[in-house]
Amino acid sequence: MSKKITGIPVSVGIGIAQAYLLVAPKLKFKKQLVTDVNHEIRRIHNSFASSIMELEKIQALAKTNLGDDEASVFKAHIAILSDPDMIKEIEAEIKNDKVNAEQALTDVTERFTKTLATMKNNNYMQERASDVKDVSIRALSHLLGTKLPDLAAVNRPVVVVAHELTPSDTSQMNRQYIKGIITDEGGRTSHSAIMSRTLRIPAVVGTNQATAEISNGDSIILDGLNGIVIVNPSQNEIKQYQKKAARFAVQRAEWEKMVNVASRSKDGKQFEIAANIGTLKDVSDAVKVGADAIGLFRTEFLYMDNDSLPTENQQFTSYKQVVQAMAGKPVVIRTMDIGGDKPLPYLPLPEEMNPFLGYRAIRISLDRQNIFRTQLRALIRASQFGQLRIMFPMIATLDEFRKAKQIFIEEKQKLQKETPGIGNNIKVGIMVEIPAAAVFADQFAKEVDFFSIGTNDLIQYSFAADRGNDAVSYLYQPLNPALLRLIKHVIDSAHKEGKIAAMCGEMAGDPRALPLLLGMGLDEYSMSASSILRSRSQMRSLTTDQCAAIVDEVLAKCQTAAEVEMLVNQRLAGRTK
Amino acid sequence: MSKKITGIPVSVGIGIAQAYLLVAPKLKFKKQLVTDVNHEIRRIHNSFASSIMELEKIQALAKTNLGDDEASVFKAHIAILSDPDMIKEIEAEIKNDKVNAEQALTDVTERFTKTLATMKNNNYMQERASDVKDVSIRALSHLLGTKLPDLAAVNRPVVVVAHELTPSDTSQMNRQYIKGIITDEGGRTSHSAIMSRTLRIPAVVGTNQATAEISNGDSIILDGLNGIVIVNPSQNEIKQYQKKAARFAVQRAEWEKMVNVASRSKDGKQFEIAANIGTLKDVSDAVKVGADAIGLFRTEFLYMDNDSLPTENQQFTSYKQVVQAMAGKPVVIRTMDIGGDKPLPYLPLPEEMNPFLGYRAIRISLDRQNIFRTQLRALIRASQFGQLRIMFPMIATLDEFRKAKQIFIEEKQKLQKETPGIGNNIKVGIMVEIPAAAVFADQFAKEVDFFSIGTNDLIQYSFAADRGNDAVSYLYQPLNPALLRLIKHVIDSAHKEGKIAAMCGEMAGDPRALPLLLGMGLDEYSMSASSILRSRSQMRSLTTDQCAAIVDEVLAKCQTAAEVEMLVNQRLAGRTK
Repeated sequence: MSKKITGIPVSVGIGIAQAYLLVAPKLKFKKQLVTDVNHEIRRIHNSFASSIMELEKIQALAKTNLGDDEASVFKAHIAILSDPDMIKEIEAEIKNDKVNAEQALTDVTERFTKTLATMKNNNYMQERASDVKDVSIRALSHLLGTKLPDLAAVNRPVVVVAHELTPSDTSQMNRQYIKGIITDEGGRTSHSAIMSRTLRIPAVVGTNQATAEISNGDSIILDGLNGIVIVNPSQNEIKQYQKKAARFAVQRAEWEKMVNVASRSKDGKQFEIAANIGTLKDVSDAVKVGADAIGLFRTEFLYMDNDSLPTENQQFTSYKQVVQAMAGKPVVIRTMDIGGDKPLPYLPLPEEMNPFLGYRAIRISLDRQNIFRTQLRALIRASQFGQLRIMFPMIATLDEFRKAKQIFIEEKQKLQKETPGIGNNIKVGIMVEIPAAAVFADQFAKEVDFFSIGTNDLIQYSFAADRGNDAVSYLYQPLNPALLRLIKHVIDSAHKEGKIAAMCGEMAGDPRALPLLLGMGLDEYSMSASSILRSRSQMRSLTTDQCAAIVDEVLAKCQTAAEVEMLVNQRLAGRTK
Repeated sequence: MSKKITGIPVSVGIGIAQAYLLVAPKLKFKKQLVTDVNHEIRRIHNSFASSIMELEKIQALAKTNLGDDEASVFKAHIAILSDPDMIKEIEAEIKNDKVNAEQALTDVTERFTKTLATMKNNNYMQERASDVKDVSIRALSHLLGTKLPDLAAVNRPVVVVAHELTPSDTSQMNRQYIKGIITDEGGRTSHSAIMSRTLRIPAVVGTNQATAEISNGDSIILDGLNGIVIVNPSQNEIKQYQKKAARFAVQRAEWEKMVNVASRSKDGKQFEIAANIGTLKDVSDAVKVGADAIGLFRTEFLYMDNDSLPTENQQFTSYKQVVQAMAGKPVVIRTMDIGGDKPLPYLPLPEEMNPFLGYRAIRISLDRQNIFRTQLRALIRASQFGQLRIMFPMIATLDEFRKAKQIFIEEKQKLQKETPGIGNNIKVGIMVEIPAAAVFADQFAKEVDFFSIGTNDLIQYSFAADRGNDAVSYLYQPLNPALLRLIKHVIDSAHKEGKIAAMCGEMAGDPRALPLLLGMGLDEYSMSASSILRSRSQMRSLTTDQCAAIVDEVLAKCQTAAEVEMLVNQRLAGRTK
């Protein structure tokens, strides 16, 4: 009998293949007192050398499959194994305590990770701790002669089943063979979810039980459209899903034709479908799928990947590259959104009880104006090379917007002494991601040039639920009617003042939400590049009048997110009232 | 020349007296190698014994001045000093390392506090860490023969100036002599602020600079009405403020007459002014000032002051006592609002990155229903002894309210098998403290019996600013027009369905907000008992028509909190349009 498991569908498509359980084997050993100390020292050296060789292979594969950035994780792992201090400490323990290499390795690496892991709210240190842990497991596996599951070595079609994927897992995935991803944990914005969309591998996450219910080699159907996993399906089910997969392949081929067509509704109204980017190299993905704009360029990477504050010229160069790559299409650049949860080694910030409700983004920019002014000058200078827009994150009150705008004007005027007119074509807008700003959108609309609704944060704050916290993930409700009201208010307010209403959260690329957003008249839909073609295709199948009628009906009748979803589905399927 | 310092006025009144700096002297010592180890061991024993004697005196004073609860801090301190393990460890260090008692004490207590303090998000452990630190400073002061500032020994009128007050400071305050409190840190909801209101001592907090700018013995005027501190004032200033203080004394005497009068506006409309309580003993304060109801009974103390989950009978007894003490007046009891930031030793909760956006309150109650059902049964049984209402905290969606209400109905039906009709008179409502619930109030109003707007959290989430975080305290804006809109929407929605609209956050007792809330027609104003008489007096001076007109004008014209405050002041002073 087949068995059904349900979860959250986070990457579309159907995968049919055997299960490949990515669950580390238990690496058991006993503490032993040894007499031949030198033998143990040789063993530890050998295990490190074998690990390094293995990692170099994986690194090369990751470079090919995924690019330099993802491969850099392994560079870090190799660096840890090459650190003479660590191996010296292990040698010392073997010599002093006369213990086996396994024990010394485990003791020393645990000390390292514990020290790093005590910094609970520091993501950077947490990641370093997990690197050390990864490395120690690898070295231990060599000591014990136990083979670790090795994604990079997979050479037949499989569906990967894991507790949760780590960056080092995803970087070893060969798109050719990995037909699907199933995880126990995670939600729409977890690492597995984001990577599966980037790699275009169908995925279902948050199943709670996949690794417990599925065994290696089980036959698997993964339905990434509906969040269903069938374990050991019947012949009938396989046939049915093969058909479904074929239909989906046709659909996907249809999407591929969407690169050079207009982002237009069925009744011919023109919109913009834009890309969210986080680094310079994301721009080429956006260009490839014919993004109408960059709707959100996060500038954090400039601050995170640096040993000191990025200089004006460093920033200018990056902004200019993006603006030039988009060749006259709009590029919305968000000013620094750094905070307590993204610490910078050179910019100490207070440790906070609730960093998502803390000192971050525009709050820091208005307080430490030298950092902000440097960024604004770089942006104003880069605006000469295309259509650059500036967006302030985490605006809660009009006071804050006015202060930020005033600083922008001051820097512009300074630069205009040398370059008359520079920056005059820059539109200045805000992220609407704090409930107070959404409620007060009608007043903000009189002063900003555009809104971009940041739904990830807006949902988080509107429902008081951390989007990274599994225990409250049921409150991530993009279709909740209270949220839809807020969004409609923001869009209506923008239009009343003749301003642009955009959206740059996950919700903009969510096919369940698109009919509603189109019905509300949202102007720009900014999403990860991988969702653009599907959204454009969907948009071209919908008429704005029909969608507006659905919005009216939803807001009049529905009280819960589930009711909204049902009603939208009914209306789009039946097209009856 | 006199010097002015400004801060946040958190407790009304005028204080004129000499400054008493509550800043610990630097307790300096050098590490020394000693030969007479036994001498050092005797010294450490003597210092502990003297500390214990001193603490016993302070404890007795605290009991008289403040009650048993506050005195319990010192019981904890005495317990730490009486712990044989700690002193043994200090002895061992003196013996092994041959160091002086000061060094050994410092080393050992630092190890204790470090271990406790690593649990960053655990308030309980943090408090224990600060207890150990307090105790070690006291013992060190005895070793060095340096006297610590001793609030309990103050026997002349003073204004206390401190960085921030600790619970152990406030518990030593004799109301007779402490004429005012000034702190560098803190906001409206900090410990110093809450305690100064409870003790009715005028206070200005968040001055940033008071301890740096004021010296011991400086002459001080503290204006707790306007948040102004004058250091070494002129004779003229003293005269002026003595007049002001006299006027305020008249006003306060006027307030004292408000115990037995109706909570009514000048034009004779009837409202309710209620008390927020946190423990059983708070009820008598509420009764003393003639509270019309208990608008918020926090039930957390039942869970926090216990070694295991409180039983149904324990809870029943507490609820019954409060309901009976209020003799038929309404008592609104909020179900458990426990979460990651208030850990219970017997109920392990996950450590969270952002506990204010986490697994807490109704989210736990709906998930761990046995805890919730026990509480509901106790509440239903207690409802037989008066007018009990049940309120659910942290409701974000209608789904959540429906689930909670359904569980209430199930428990009621079970109890009705034995006691027909029990619980049928219970009104069931929600805290409106999450933005999504405020936005959706019109739909909630169809299903709930009442709303109580929890402004502390509603402001925190609406502006995405942790109210305990000084770096973003500027965003605690009760008069922000976006917030006022949300509040008006909640009140209007309740009234449209014939339901009660109450408020139980700090804002309900804020004299700047009262005219606006009255203008919106808020039915019940729940606040700390110490604010009730002032609010009742203010209410009786205002007409609802005038206030409604001010609300209309504010919502039509104002864009910032500062504009709102100015306009309200102008209209109430000038009474012109």
